[in-house]
Amino acid sequence: MTSLLIAGGQVLRSDMTVSQADILIDQDSGLIKKIGSDLTAENTLQAANSLVTPGFVNGHSHVPMVLLRGCADDKPLDRWLEEDIWPAESTMTADDVHTGAKLGLLEMIKSGTTGFADMYFHVPEIVAAVDQAGVRALLGHGVVTTGKDADKSLADVEKSLEFAQEYDGAADGRISTAFMPHSLVTVGSEYLEEFVPRVREAGIPIHYHANETLNEVTPIVNDHGIRPLDYAADHGMLEPQDFVAHGVHVDEHEMTLLAEAGTSVIHCPASNMKLASGMAPIQRLMDAGVTVGLGTDGAASNNDLSLLDEGRDAAMLGKIAANDASAVPAETVVQMMTQGSASALGFHSGVIEEGEPADLAVIDLEKPHLTPRNDLVSHLAYSAAGSDVKHTICDGQILMRDREVLTFEEESIVKQAQQTASSLVSRVSG
Amino acid sequence: MTSLLIAGGQVLRSDMTVSQADILIDQDSGLIKKIGSDLTAENTLQAANSLVTPGFVNGHSHVPMVLLRGCADDKPLDRWLEEDIWPAESTMTADDVHTGAKLGLLEMIKSGTTGFADMYFHVPEIVAAVDQAGVRALLGHGVVTTGKDADKSLADVEKSLEFAQEYDGAADGRISTAFMPHSLVTVGSEYLEEFVPRVREAGIPIHYHANETLNEVTPIVNDHGIRPLDYAADHGMLEPQDFVAHGVHVDEHEMTLLAEAGTSVIHCPASNMKLASGMAPIQRLMDAGVTVGLGTDGAASNNDLSLLDEGRDAAMLGKIAANDASAVPAETVVQMMTQGSASALGFHSGVIEEGEPADLAVIDLEKPHLTPRNDLVSHLAYSAAGSDVKHTICDGQILMRDREVLTFEEESIVKQAQQTASSLVSRVSG
Repeated sequence: MTSLLIAGGQVLRSDMTVSQADILIDQDSGLIKKIGSDLTAENTLQAANSLVTPGFVNGHSHVPMVLLRGCADDKPLDRWLEEDIWPAESTMTADDVHTGAKLGLLEMIKSGTTGFADMYFHVPEIVAAVDQAGVRALLGHGVVTTGKDADKSLADVEKSLEFAQEYDGAADGRISTAFMPHSLVTVGSEYLEEFVPRVREAGIPIHYHANETLNEVTPIVNDHGIRPLDYAADHGMLEPQDFVAHGVHVDEHEMTLLAEAGTSVIHCPASNMKLASGMAPIQRLMDAGVTVGLGTDGAASNNDLSLLDEGRDAAMLGKIAANDASAVPAETVVQMMTQGSASALGFHSGVIEEGEPADLAVIDLEKPHLTPRNDLVSHLAYSAAGSDVKHTICDGQILMRDREVLTFEEESIVKQAQQTASSLVSRVSG
Repeated sequence: MTSLLIAGGQVLRSDMTVSQADILIDQDSGLIKKIGSDLTAENTLQAANSLVTPGFVNGHSHVPMVLLRGCADDKPLDRWLEEDIWPAESTMTADDVHTGAKLGLLEMIKSGTTGFADMYFHVPEIVAAVDQAGVRALLGHGVVTTGKDADKSLADVEKSLEFAQEYDGAADGRISTAFMPHSLVTVGSEYLEEFVPRVREAGIPIHYHANETLNEVTPIVNDHGIRPLDYAADHGMLEPQDFVAHGVHVDEHEMTLLAEAGTSVIHCPASNMKLASGMAPIQRLMDAGVTVGLGTDGAASNNDLSLLDEGRDAAMLGKIAANDASAVPAETVVQMMTQGSASALGFHSGVIEEGEPADLAVIDLEKPHLTPRNDLVSHLAYSAAGSDVKHTICDGQILMRDREVLTFEEESIVKQAQQTASSLVSRVSG
């Protein structure tokens, strides 16, 4: 076997304890073979004075939107979408999406993210970028039918199912897929009624935005007399393999519904704050037994893709939402950005244990802002930044070594993304 | 004159426009001499592909508390102070404070902060650290009289006044001072009545915590039948040169009172969220005409000292507090962390204009997470991190060049701080 040793780091285990250990990786299988001391391997990555954590899992994103970073700030969701985002996206070509995906993946690898879920269009371009990047991904074609004619809508929904069927297992198994209706209010119920049974038959998970703003709740309550997640359940979209993004405006009944169904929620605190969508009741969701993961959403409503920023935001917002400083504590945050998201997406990563995937981030602790080392779990939740990540490993392969990304040409991607974004902005304003 | 050129950067001016320019600095006076093109000087700092911003001003901190970073998370203010912070601080020696101050200053310089206000004890040790660091500071001895006997209390209040008188103008004029009663509920009114007239006569500003939690509001309302800021005004502590930290629980009347008095508020969003203190009505305070600056508070309730993190937090929390995505927009955030704080502290820094102090941060834009460069003010508010700061300049002197701090030995400070913190923790638990 080709082997890799992560040597001498402080290792964060699944029970949230930290202790010094070597990690031996079988690079052929991509799995962690042994965790112990005095291990040897063909290749070695030094992790002295570093914290070795599970690679972070970004549970909800629209990665190519990095091209629109900073284009439209300080607006609520509906105006932001209608005035800025949708017009810009309508001009995006497959090449643009490919360039945006590479830029976003570069940013994610540089901040220790080894897996993510993404909803967008021109998704085969994202597949290609993920294949090259070396990360793990759950991808899907996002469907909106409102405002479209029936033929176009049907083709779009069909495309989402076809993509999920065709690309599951791509990139040597690092890519999985889901059927992705955008939300319960932007996809007509007739399409859900027709397609969800086919999706279920094919054994494909479903991912969608749910209860992000009151505009995603009120119309369903008014039109159907039930809560949105009842509506989702009625349409067969609330299963253990499914996961919803946001869950900001959920009531007690919906929390129970999620817990009983085993459907996970991806919390996106930065986006919820920036768009003033509201405060998701994260502590209460977890108390009810719901699996909660963490996502950045797109960079245009964040404005970055670092899960470490997102973890800090989750702790901060979670306390304000609960009016309780003990809510969403450091350990919970770290679990959300690793095990929580991984579990929601059906990944086996998110923990550092023998036999599990070698998806890891190595964080350099020799920094003033990570001194003193009173509590490394606290540092991970509250003090560490994306730029503190020294090495990123996914599926047993080194994606970044000493801040140098090995699977991408950083300089040329940054340059190309700048050109693409300039062209995009001039297309929209021109 | 000895001169320094910041060459070829994108320069953020006081009107929040950004354009390429050279900045010529007279290092003898520490002032910006000229902003233009094709300028020359004896020394040059390259700023190509970089954003040159005013150095950030941290309007409220307890810098040596970096030693307690991660020691006590996920607790509300009263339990956090009584169970963890005060016991730890009671064992802190002058040497500990000096070590903590150096670590905190290192972190601040590395994240582009060139000025700060600090309330702590053993303050002459902080003076010495600031003198060496090269930053600008407004310092004061924090006074608590509750729970202390009269002699000790009197001595403590006297010390705060004496410190302010003795050290104003220290470190070649980079240090100014204030009288710093901890809060309106932790210092007896008899001491305020005796000392504030003496403070006013000496022309010294006053800085204190106000309306941080309801525990700082309710006792005053109950005991005196007036709001805390009325109580402050009645005690002569609401003048244009004064500034209060937090201002979370202020009512409409107090907002008007602050605006009419010209007293500034330092907003500490991270601390307010982490301790679940509440959401300061920042947009409403600014709409009322109050000058608002930005502060990190101590690192034990944050858990870092980066003003860039704090700016992002301010935008995020400001929108949720106002239930309006257009509240506390990017420009406002950037103004708060530069002009707002500088104005509150009586610093002339916070703007890049000819004749003003050369207190600057140069931010490297060649990063994936700062690509594309759609809007650099947005990037400063939402996407930039402390580690993106390349050079830090204060009073015309280079404090950090290409991430290397020139006024401190980073490695030895980090090591010493780790040792001090370990000793502190064992003293408290031992």
